[in-house]
Amino acid sequence: MDEMHKPSRRAFLRGSAAAAAGTVAGAASAQTADPLITDVQDWASITGAGVDETPYGMPIEYESHVVRRNVEWLTASPISSINFTPIHALEGTITPQGCAFERHHSGAIELRKEDYRLMINGLVDKPLVFTYADLERFPRENHVYFCECAANTGMEWAGAQLNGVQFTHGMIHNMEYTGVPLRALLNEAGLGAAGDLKDKWVYVEGADASSNGRSIPMEKALDDVLVAFKANGEALRMEHGYPVRLVVPGWEGNMWVKWIRRIEVSDTPTESREETSKYTDVLEDGTARKWTWVMDAKSVITSPSPQMPITHGKGPLVISGLAWSGHGQITRVDVSRDGGITWETARLGKQGDTKALTRFYLDVDWDGAPMLLQARAMDETGYVQPTKDQLRETRGENSVYHNNCIQTWYVNAEGIAENVEVS
Amino acid sequence: MDEMHKPSRRAFLRGSAAAAAGTVAGAASAQTADPLITDVQDWASITGAGVDETPYGMPIEYESHVVRRNVEWLTASPISSINFTPIHALEGTITPQGCAFERHHSGAIELRKEDYRLMINGLVDKPLVFTYADLERFPRENHVYFCECAANTGMEWAGAQLNGVQFTHGMIHNMEYTGVPLRALLNEAGLGAAGDLKDKWVYVEGADASSNGRSIPMEKALDDVLVAFKANGEALRMEHGYPVRLVVPGWEGNMWVKWIRRIEVSDTPTESREETSKYTDVLEDGTARKWTWVMDAKSVITSPSPQMPITHGKGPLVISGLAWSGHGQITRVDVSRDGGITWETARLGKQGDTKALTRFYLDVDWDGAPMLLQARAMDETGYVQPTKDQLRETRGENSVYHNNCIQTWYVNAEGIAENVEVS
Repeated sequence: MDEMHKPSRRAFLRGSAAAAAGTVAGAASAQTADPLITDVQDWASITGAGVDETPYGMPIEYESHVVRRNVEWLTASPISSINFTPIHALEGTITPQGCAFERHHSGAIELRKEDYRLMINGLVDKPLVFTYADLERFPRENHVYFCECAANTGMEWAGAQLNGVQFTHGMIHNMEYTGVPLRALLNEAGLGAAGDLKDKWVYVEGADASSNGRSIPMEKALDDVLVAFKANGEALRMEHGYPVRLVVPGWEGNMWVKWIRRIEVSDTPTESREETSKYTDVLEDGTARKWTWVMDAKSVITSPSPQMPITHGKGPLVISGLAWSGHGQITRVDVSRDGGITWETARLGKQGDTKALTRFYLDVDWDGAPMLLQARAMDETGYVQPTKDQLRETRGENSVYHNNCIQTWYVNAEGIAENVEVS
Repeated sequence: MDEMHKPSRRAFLRGSAAAAAGTVAGAASAQTADPLITDVQDWASITGAGVDETPYGMPIEYESHVVRRNVEWLTASPISSINFTPIHALEGTITPQGCAFERHHSGAIELRKEDYRLMINGLVDKPLVFTYADLERFPRENHVYFCECAANTGMEWAGAQLNGVQFTHGMIHNMEYTGVPLRALLNEAGLGAAGDLKDKWVYVEGADASSNGRSIPMEKALDDVLVAFKANGEALRMEHGYPVRLVVPGWEGNMWVKWIRRIEVSDTPTESREETSKYTDVLEDGTARKWTWVMDAKSVITSPSPQMPITHGKGPLVISGLAWSGHGQITRVDVSRDGGITWETARLGKQGDTKALTRFYLDVDWDGAPMLLQARAMDETGYVQPTKDQLRETRGENSVYHNNCIQTWYVNAEGIAENVEVS
């Protein structure tokens, strides 16, 4: 971090005081002129809505822009497409289910708890079929984890294409999941028949028409994978796999199989469509990386950003963003205002969450000059988020998945932000 | 804890294996008879809903019972009433805004961000009026806190009256709040004029017709109080104070003033209606406890409970519940199955959260005999949640507020649970 570029606390307070003076001036005139201060308002003189009107509360009409959105030209059909989380407008770390991104391969299906079955078969001592009610009888756990689609930020391989952090980085959500450790169900079926577990696999598939089958090494299956039935306390939304989905912490979202119906223990990976022709990374020489499950450390500034311009002019400015790593905890995030020449260490909203979103802030005194905003994350393994050029050097430009490059927003003197590339 | 009554891990696994054998038997016949296993289902052969159908995702129709509910006879009108969180059906710790309890004194008002003003006046160096945009320029924080109405469980003073944990304990929610520390705004206005801060107060009031004014000691105001504008990442729901509410961690919900419009620094408490004739506790001798802000340690079993009977018969049973303390962290929760004669220490879902809900579990092998289920919480101060009798001994039976007694559910051999009292 360049000390020269770090605004001192005193400098910030000076900026803050200046803004306050502005506020005071405003208030002084407001006290005689602003009817919001001088007059009794409608909402203070008449009663509001009763509790019988809101058995399930929706966002207020003024927030109707904070919704998921898809990009029509990105996919051939909305039943095999993505709805992006409005991360530009969210704060903190929890993503409400109602606006948590969705990705389907053959549409979101409607499956009653009563009709739900989960089979465990293959190299097990006794194949089992669990009902939903069976799953509720196993000891359960709660963990907050991020779920990121491998294709998140994938359009950035070809340059700065989508002008909004919702679209460049919105294939992610972060929820508190409740579920049964997969290991408990595998042990229930008995893994004696599988012999040495070291080189074994499970193949997981969903009940929807795509089935979206994926192979998971036994080591991960026995570690922190959850068979989950609640998110943020509630039943899963239909689009998130109601009534049961897999949670594969830190690993690409495609493996978090929704409407999970079968888990087969096997001695080889299945090499399904979703792990051969899809969800592999074609390199410069034409060969493909595969089994690239872990989502590397990544961060992005959510505000200011193209959908969140600075509207208040110079002075105190809150730079807010998100960081995450599939390898564990985020230990540090740096922010640059000059396209990566100098860096300042951001303040982390909360430390210690593993494989979960971490909020970071840089509170600055903006001088009104244009900025090239960037963030770079570091995780507990010592890994540092790479630049786009560094990523292209290693992986070429044929990839779709696993783009965790440093993102750049150009913010002009008017506060308008734009997705740009710097070299 | 009585070791005799603690089911050993082996006993639990035996029970679990027995259930599995049952499952296997079911599955074996299912493989020839259960069309859910043998036949290709509709949802696996046709495509589902596309992403364009769910810009904001609602709970699936099968979960339409998981909503807030009021108790019609409890209050004269729904605009001055309570809608209870469906905590019987929730898991984990986060409460989604859509089903987080609401309590109004004159209804939920609709107030645009553009029309929002927050005044700080009284004993300050310069009175200030903040717009919503001003608040967004101060360094912000994120914390998960519970908000409990002082009247939560209030009906239990008179005995076991409401047959459902949603109604006995549902005036509580737990959300990740984003906001500006109140101390930052007070310092912006300048507290020099207030002199010695030790015996000073702030009086806070809302923009709704009730104004719901409350006095808060300066020490608390400068500690962890937040002027909050987001909950679980999103803007506050209208019923939770959109666009800005106060968050007073660990203290009674009535002080978490919604639509907050004014904060006055003063050298005495204001002794408003809401802190004299209401939100005080009338004792046996006719005197009243007042300034009883902190919510003492409390816990309750959410499942099984009257709204969540055991439907699977004997064998493995997950007992799930919530614990919280306004004084800090929950350090231990014990569960009794015999009305408080013997106790077993529960497993905490996650430790370390302060002034936030903690999920606890006891995974048992139910023998099918009737149970008197209880939970008792302990917090970091060493405080132990009292029985109903202990509470009545100290406080009499005239109170409405601050009932944190141990709750008892009688579960019969059929698994039906009922709200009862034990002495």
